[in-house]
Amino acid sequence: MMDILHRVGAKTPAPEPIYDALTSIDGLAAWWTRDTSGTADEVGGVIEFRFPPVGGFDMEVVELVAGKRVVWRVVGESPEEWLGTTIEFDLRQDGDYTIVLFKHAGWREPVEFMHHCSTKWATFLLSLIQLVETGTGAPAPDEVRVGDWR
Amino acid sequence: MMDILHRVGAKTPAPEPIYDALTSIDGLAAWWTRDTSGTADEVGGVIEFRFPPVGGFDMEVVELVAGKRVVWRVVGESPEEWLGTTIEFDLRQDGDYTIVLFKHAGWREPVEFMHHCSTKWATFLLSLIQLVETGTGAPAPDEVRVGDWR
Repeated sequence: MMDILHRVGAKTPAPEPIYDALTSIDGLAAWWTRDTSGTADEVGGVIEFRFPPVGGFDMEVVELVAGKRVVWRVVGESPEEWLGTTIEFDLRQDGDYTIVLFKHAGWREPVEFMHHCSTKWATFLLSLIQLVETGTGAPAPDEVRVGDWR
Repeated sequence: MMDILHRVGAKTPAPEPIYDALTSIDGLAAWWTRDTSGTADEVGGVIEFRFPPVGGFDMEVVELVAGKRVVWRVVGESPEEWLGTTIEFDLRQDGDYTIVLFKHAGWREPVEFMHHCSTKWATFLLSLIQLVETGTGAPAPDEVRVGDWR
């Protein structure tokens, strides 16, 4: 099993704005993809992230610790490589910054698509901190492009 | 052992501009850090990357395949976690894009610093493709910030 890891920090006095952006549909739509629906604020809820015209991801919320931790599991609609993997966000306040430790865990093989997803996650996490710091993120379809696979 | 993986694509008709940006001091200084010196175009050469005032990395060039592959090993000046790890760039042309598959291999533990380096590598690889596509990268000290650790 292999993991994608990232760490970003948002200059903000408390973790709540980031936690809200991870646990509300409006928040998620403002940094990952505008086409987001479902239930993000309850364990057992399912969030549907879509990237027209290429599909997307369904995430079941499996753990929520207010202001500290969010975990999703990929279920249903998904590229085959993502099915059953988990996405973890751990938050903590460190002085003037809220630190986000990110892990997309459980990849079975280090396929080329995993390389791509690693780079894309970095750009979306930067969109998340930009959202919290400035009020405006860069969600799909207006996200940072990283090559021919978008 | 754990690896940082990334994939980016530059819209350019051939891999040579990216290969040049990985194997010349001027090229490296234009996307990673302006404070770059040493020998980048010979196996056995050592490249000194510095990020004043916080130190940097010495890389020994261990493999060069023109237009296709560049491998460095971290030697000498380095954070302890990087010593002995390897950095690999594999290039190929895919239609209008040169694809870069990147691997920073051999991390002993998934420490928080590895999370940070993963995100920073993404931003520097985007600086590399921006350099090739537009003529201007975003090397340190003017690189994209990802939080309190720069």
